[in-house]
Amino acid sequence: MSDQTHTLADVAAALGLEAVGDTTIQVKGVNEPALASADQLALAMKPEFAAQIPEGKARTAMLWADADWHALGLQGAILAGRPRHALSGLSAMMDPGQGYGSGIHPSAVIDPSAVLGADVSVGALAVIGPEARIGAGSVVGPQAYIGWNTVIGDGAVIHAGVRIGARVTIGARFIAQPGAAIGGDGFSYVTPEISGVEKARASLGEEGTDNAQQWARIHSLGGVTIGDDCEVGANATIDRGSVRDTRIGNGTKIDNLVMIGHNVVVGNNTLICGCCGIAGSTRIGNNVVLAGQTGVSDNIFIGDNVITGGGTTVLSNIPAGRVMLGYPAMKMESHVETYKGLRRLPRLFRDVAELKKAVSKLVGDQ
Amino acid sequence: MSDQTHTLADVAAALGLEAVGDTTIQVKGVNEPALASADQLALAMKPEFAAQIPEGKARTAMLWADADWHALGLQGAILAGRPRHALSGLSAMMDPGQGYGSGIHPSAVIDPSAVLGADVSVGALAVIGPEARIGAGSVVGPQAYIGWNTVIGDGAVIHAGVRIGARVTIGARFIAQPGAAIGGDGFSYVTPEISGVEKARASLGEEGTDNAQQWARIHSLGGVTIGDDCEVGANATIDRGSVRDTRIGNGTKIDNLVMIGHNVVVGNNTLICGCCGIAGSTRIGNNVVLAGQTGVSDNIFIGDNVITGGGTTVLSNIPAGRVMLGYPAMKMESHVETYKGLRRLPRLFRDVAELKKAVSKLVGDQ
Amino acid sequence: MSDQTHTLADVAAALGLEAVGDTTIQVKGVNEPALASADQLALAMKPEFAAQIPEGKARTAMLWADADWHALGLQGAILAGRPRHALSGLSAMMDPGQGYGSGIHPSAVIDPSAVLGADVSVGALAVIGPEARIGAGSVVGPQAYIGWNTVIGDGAVIHAGVRIGARVTIGARFIAQPGAAIGGDGFSYVTPEISGVEKARASLGEEGTDNAQQWARIHSLGGVTIGDDCEVGANATIDRGSVRDTRIGNGTKIDNLVMIGHNVVVGNNTLICGCCGIAGSTRIGNNVVLAGQTGVSDNIFIGDNVITGGGTTVLSNIPAGRVMLGYPAMKMESHVETYKGLRRLPRLFRDVAELKKAVSKLVGDQ
Repeated sequence: MSDQTHTLADVAAALGLEAVGDTTIQVKGVNEPALASADQLALAMKPEFAAQIPEGKARTAMLWADADWHALGLQGAILAGRPRHALSGLSAMMDPGQGYGSGIHPSAVIDPSAVLGADVSVGALAVIGPEARIGAGSVVGPQAYIGWNTVIGDGAVIHAGVRIGARVTIGARFIAQPGAAIGGDGFSYVTPEISGVEKARASLGEEGTDNAQQWARIHSLGGVTIGDDCEVGANATIDRGSVRDTRIGNGTKIDNLVMIGHNVVVGNNTLICGCCGIAGSTRIGNNVVLAGQTGVSDNIFIGDNVITGGGTTVLSNIPAGRVMLGYPAMKMESHVETYKGLRRLPRLFRDVAELKKAVSKLVGDQ
Repeated sequence: MSDQTHTLADVAAALGLEAVGDTTIQVKGVNEPALASADQLALAMKPEFAAQIPEGKARTAMLWADADWHALGLQGAILAGRPRHALSGLSAMMDPGQGYGSGIHPSAVIDPSAVLGADVSVGALAVIGPEARIGAGSVVGPQAYIGWNTVIGDGAVIHAGVRIGARVTIGARFIAQPGAAIGGDGFSYVTPEISGVEKARASLGEEGTDNAQQWARIHSLGGVTIGDDCEVGANATIDRGSVRDTRIGNGTKIDNLVMIGHNVVVGNNTLICGCCGIAGSTRIGNNVVLAGQTGVSDNIFIGDNVITGGGTTVLSNIPAGRVMLGYPAMKMESHVETYKGLRRLPRLFRDVAELKKAVSKLVGDQ
Repeated sequence: MSDQTHTLADVAAALGLEAVGDTTIQVKGVNEPALASADQLALAMKPEFAAQIPEGKARTAMLWADADWHALGLQGAILAGRPRHALSGLSAMMDPGQGYGSGIHPSAVIDPSAVLGADVSVGALAVIGPEARIGAGSVVGPQAYIGWNTVIGDGAVIHAGVRIGARVTIGARFIAQPGAAIGGDGFSYVTPEISGVEKARASLGEEGTDNAQQWARIHSLGGVTIGDDCEVGANATIDRGSVRDTRIGNGTKIDNLVMIGHNVVVGNNTLICGCCGIAGSTRIGNNVVLAGQTGVSDNIFIGDNVITGGGTTVLSNIPAGRVMLGYPAMKMESHVETYKGLRRLPRLFRDVAELKKAVSKLVGDQ
């Protein structure tokens, strides 16, 4: 709908919502209330944004369920019970996309043994390796790379410069943002003799010193398996497994610059926000939300529905349903309490010093 | 000047500084004092580096303002009041660059509707999309990508493999390091019903548990706007806005592997160091410096002139002028104090245990 | 050996290990015990994995030194004193690779002045710049970039989309995972007058406020030097030095999304795990292990054999041999102690409040 116009009634109908007022007004795009032109639908999805509507020129707006659109000076409106959810469908309608173009660009290098479904487009200078299979309707962006024997489901959007290595299996409706790298080798090395790290882990840090040893590489023989309806962010990386595949469940979304280590298993409908790092062989459940810069140690598990706050460092298992924060991660209530205590620490030191004096005097007086 | 030689006098004149001694000596490049050859200018910009001059072969050096160049055994010198600032101009003179070559490489794929200014060079296998406009004198490196309708000002240097998506607007003298990805979609999803994350935020963590729900995608309809004189580091990412553009002010520098989320607004002359993550819709002021691995929550603000220390986690607003450190961020003085307290905690526990004993005895004695 | 089969005896001989039972059985690939087919070698390298062997179909397995292979229902086995180390050689034998193909792909753009050793392969749409030299037997993956005057030793594997800029020098057997960017410019700027950051550092945070100043760029004139047997992870970045090269020693492995700043010096056989950031001019010793998301300030040093735990923030020098954890980094024992103390803080506050009451009563009673 980027260059098209639609009536307010048509937009509402597409979203399964109610349009009120003059529903024949043509809208072309959306905008913030203060910036909207007369043919744009203003987005004022909470009462606190309504005041900005008169600052712009919009005649129509998307509003909350019981908004008094008439009092806001509008000629028409779409009312939504959960407007943020309605924005999902609306933004899909209005998305002008990246303009990659259709068809197979003549500069793309596609191995003759690769199999492309119906209506797959491949951008300029993309490379598709031997025996790769790309599902119907998928878009492979300019300069993207799809490796040997990799399988991608229908309706994928692989943006510019994405790298998907060999033997990766991805479900339907996959989205990969620019520069995402899927299928690099795991970071896995071993020393001939027991290493300092192994000693430090065994002794909780008492003993780490090493004689100089070289690291021998363990090759990653597994691939990566990603479910349906997943998204991977710009310059994020997902490593292949050592023996079996690294696995990402259905409906899971991974943000920019996230690192998913080898052998990690992530469940369904989990969100992993920007700059998170998940170390090797860790298992993460369903409906988990890891806020930005969360770090998770290797070989542990995070249960279903766990939520972490920004910058949380998870060094041990977290049972299902917990909300965690801090370094190392604590339950959010404990963290808030602890943090308050920390800020009052200087006063506590003074209190204890005074007590010592008072008690010493009492003892002396006896 | 990479392959050229200049007299000491000419170098000093170009920097607006004073040359002393034999100013006719030819110099060709710069080096650390101990490594410099006879035709290189040694960089000894603080007294503590002067001792290394005799270890090398330099006849000339850049020194601090009142340096006794003669006593250091040199034949000539450039004296600078703020040598580190002088190094800026000097390093620009001496930079041999990347050798990308001039002109349009025949393997580049440039849409016929793209408009390139005078003296733009485009490297091998670069892609420039429809209606893109690139300002005069810009360098588009090998394998770089410039998307549909994107506008870049004069004098840009876009290094190898940079990805700039559709509808991005960038000012003059822009520099993008290899692999930077500008214009990926924002990480923005919504559940049909109120999600566990929304509940946990509302209740400060008491209640996060979710029934399984799928995440619906909110498409990013906005672009990215970047001012003049900005730089973006290797493999850094800047996401497009949801409705309006994500915005970066003039003179702002962003380091490697930084993540700038959707709708973020960054002011002028701000430095964002390596591995920082700024979550969606946060506003950052002018002249801010965020040290490496600083994380900033979504929907907050950081005032002008704020400075954070390495690894600071910012979970709430910071007023202008503060120097912050820690998890979560505190004023640096408080953090230093708190940290001292933390280290003395074991002693405090012992003191309180002793006090309890003493008081209990006193009470018993009564 | 990906498509080949070998006898159990041959595999054991290649690894310098002992095969027992029917050593004529043909094996083709490895797998986890429960997933292994009859022609795969099951990996059950610790007693706790042995129980899964009957769940799969393997007739052979790699086991620990004194395993009772016969009791496990196997027909043959390889016994290894340190099985994880044996896995290194075994995984190299079994690695099917990325299938990039051999020879020079006709779509690659190779400058006529570049020098390629014997048996170098160059993938589709790769770019090799002027005067670059690539050692014998190296693999340059699809869409990779090797810059002007860069030298890479024998036996390198440069994966898809790797960017190596100008004047980089790399030793033998180098591996670069997809999207790694080596040789971006350092993040180095200077203001005309003393900046707020300089003031804040000098005063430990008391004074940071700035008058608005623009940042002048210091160009990076140095390159990057990397030793033999190094590996750099997916989308990791290593910046070039300001005057001399940034340096990585022999046998050092760098994981995904790691950032190595300008002028950093890293020793030999050091492991830097995912998402670590090392700020400019810091020196890191030999046999160091930095766990994921470790951050290290600029201009400090970390001695040999140091180990950090996940998410450690290193703000000051660390002597050799220490095991560190926390924000800021403390010795691991102190951190564990401090963390215990933190959790007991609320009780300590209650204890002190009670003590105050008791002492106040005692004082009143006197």
